[in-house]
Amino acid sequence: MQQDPKAFLRHLFYEAVEAALPKNKIRAYLPSPPPEGGRVVVIGAGKASAAMAQELEACWHGPLTGLVVTRYGHGADCKHIEIVEAGHPLPDETGAKAAQTILELVKDLGENDLVIGLFSGGGSALLPMPQDDISLNEKQQINRALLLSGASIGEMNCVRRHLSQIKGGHLAKACAPARIVNLLISDVPGDAPSTIASGPLVGDATTCADALEILERYRIAISSRIRAGLTSGQFETVSPEILDTQSIHTHVIARTQLSLEAAANAAQSMGVSAHILGDSLEGEARDVGRVHAGIAAQVLNHQQPFSSPCVLLSGGETSVTVKGNGRGGRNVEFLLSCLLACEAGSNIYALAADTDGVDGLEEIAGAVFGPDSFKRAKAMGLNPLEFLKRNDGHSFFEALGDQIITGPTRTNVNDFRALLIGWER
Amino acid sequence: MQQDPKAFLRHLFYEAVEAALPKNKIRAYLPSPPPEGGRVVVIGAGKASAAMAQELEACWHGPLTGLVVTRYGHGADCKHIEIVEAGHPLPDETGAKAAQTILELVKDLGENDLVIGLFSGGGSALLPMPQDDISLNEKQQINRALLLSGASIGEMNCVRRHLSQIKGGHLAKACAPARIVNLLISDVPGDAPSTIASGPLVGDATTCADALEILERYRIAISSRIRAGLTSGQFETVSPEILDTQSIHTHVIARTQLSLEAAANAAQSMGVSAHILGDSLEGEARDVGRVHAGIAAQVLNHQQPFSSPCVLLSGGETSVTVKGNGRGGRNVEFLLSCLLACEAGSNIYALAADTDGVDGLEEIAGAVFGPDSFKRAKAMGLNPLEFLKRNDGHSFFEALGDQIITGPTRTNVNDFRALLIGWER
Repeated sequence: MQQDPKAFLRHLFYEAVEAALPKNKIRAYLPSPPPEGGRVVVIGAGKASAAMAQELEACWHGPLTGLVVTRYGHGADCKHIEIVEAGHPLPDETGAKAAQTILELVKDLGENDLVIGLFSGGGSALLPMPQDDISLNEKQQINRALLLSGASIGEMNCVRRHLSQIKGGHLAKACAPARIVNLLISDVPGDAPSTIASGPLVGDATTCADALEILERYRIAISSRIRAGLTSGQFETVSPEILDTQSIHTHVIARTQLSLEAAANAAQSMGVSAHILGDSLEGEARDVGRVHAGIAAQVLNHQQPFSSPCVLLSGGETSVTVKGNGRGGRNVEFLLSCLLACEAGSNIYALAADTDGVDGLEEIAGAVFGPDSFKRAKAMGLNPLEFLKRNDGHSFFEALGDQIITGPTRTNVNDFRALLIGWER
Repeated sequence: MQQDPKAFLRHLFYEAVEAALPKNKIRAYLPSPPPEGGRVVVIGAGKASAAMAQELEACWHGPLTGLVVTRYGHGADCKHIEIVEAGHPLPDETGAKAAQTILELVKDLGENDLVIGLFSGGGSALLPMPQDDISLNEKQQINRALLLSGASIGEMNCVRRHLSQIKGGHLAKACAPARIVNLLISDVPGDAPSTIASGPLVGDATTCADALEILERYRIAISSRIRAGLTSGQFETVSPEILDTQSIHTHVIARTQLSLEAAANAAQSMGVSAHILGDSLEGEARDVGRVHAGIAAQVLNHQQPFSSPCVLLSGGETSVTVKGNGRGGRNVEFLLSCLLACEAGSNIYALAADTDGVDGLEEIAGAVFGPDSFKRAKAMGLNPLEFLKRNDGHSFFEALGDQIITGPTRTNVNDFRALLIGWER
């Protein structure tokens, strides 16, 4: 490896993002066209969905119509598929109206028609349709209470699906008897289709009783209307058995693991062995950073569990308990902590960035550091510990000139982290 | 591997502890006896030091005298070396008096005399001797302030050494011109001799200026007396250059890495490949637990970065931000979180325990769980999340019958964690 190690890590990140783009991914899963007279309707929601629609148009031969919803600023030019930009992470009326339109689009389809679903992370908030007599606001309150309760993401999704008229397979049922090809870009641990955008086109094995038990376990206050809907079974989602009678093909076309493997292949083709620690590592970002630094130290000191030089790769969504008022994000928080835990000057380079191009609230994907960073920061009078304390990672790496800025990538397979250890000059 | 997987993990832990015991470790580092007429004086402090003294007596031929300090309850029978039990983690007057006696013991030694030092984790608190006109209480206040400040363990140790009249090489200087053989059991990341028990027999490269800078960086309030001592250089520790003129041989006879390697060898001899992630992993215990679970999931789902079945091993001291009032400790906190993060029923067994036999405040070393634990807990009406919230790991694993209780092991190489993944029945 001849090049600058920070440039090397940036290259791995770009390879990871590239592997998650709809480009070159849709073609392999292109369904056969419908028989003579059959219509093609494209529906979808998510941060990547406009880009998916654009790519689908580029490789589809024949007529198609449809509508997909994406986040404000994540749109893309399409000729036949209508692109709606709506609110995320907080749902808004534009998204609610788009959800209605999508249900309208599929309501009178026949056996010869084909529905192509384009869903990705963020699709749940972008396609809100609460059960009758439940307000968007009430649903959001329950979401927030669940977030604070310690419930797992799987438990939260179970409740969400049962409070929706479009998720948990309802949209698939509305498409019947049309054939469905469901293309997904996953940002969730485990990549279960029922959890990506809350699975509008996927059967849901959980029940109203499960949702009620979760709400009770975490002592979440609910209105009598919600209680009645869950107790009576009125809010039941669509079980996989019901959808089995329909022709539905689901493909996860991009996911964290594939992006990590693309980065690993890129490293290996440049002569550096790469090891994937996990595609769904979770935990407080600063502690996940310390563990990564600890494993890197083991490589340097004992050539365990891997020999150096090598790259450690990981994905998955960490969390940040915000205590300060700085400009932060999960990835720069991870990096600051990792930098502090690496002994000053040890031969470790690290990059962490969000594959959607946004780490935190600003259009900054993440950052990169090297053995020089600690010393350079000190010379500039910057103490990384102080920046970490006030959750101000973006300011720190901006001052060092080590930010990674991509703009919206129009895809999302969550966080990407890479540590280069024992680089030989 | 034919046996019960939990028994297998317990076996690995016992092998790790065994590898850290003074037994069989002292003999290899036994110094040559002094010339005719030379005396042998044994001094030391730490949780393992009485056991080290006992083993030294068992293999030493010839006369010896001395005194070592250990924690209350960690004593051992010795014939020639006096064993004093004193306060830890809070120093007390018994420890202060023992420190005085130890300095007395070495003050008139000659070139033909031999000092054998037996130091281990805990020795810093057990051997208190603040600089003149500084009270034990004042030193403890500074310690507490540093602990809350976010200062690294290295920075805290630098300050501690400069506020002591016996650490940071002072004891070694007092032994001059005698020959010194310094035997250490390490519980610190990196195993630097100057940080084990604050290095009474080891030169210290840091200066009063360093200590003052650290106190100022973390805005720790100090008395004018301490400021004067540090500013004037009166509190200077003994630099390695000064001690170079003495004959001092330092050996770390047991440390986390050696215990992890012993456990790895035991696993491998039973046909299970083992991988050491790190000998000094640090971070909030529950987050370190989630990362371990995430790596285990990667092994199960993708056979990366290791193929299953395998054992992941790690050491080093995690931390717990106590929020509840349960019966907890670092290791059971790690385990509860790891259990919650493992998908229910996935083929993962985990053990975490402190090699000194005490995880938290009770004489319980740690615990072990398996794929059945979640279901068994549920059947008993126990929700691991609730136990984690109130830092009540010992109660949880007690109810399941999965505690690990060893009694005081009389050694200490910090925490030990092992995950067995993909065990084949």
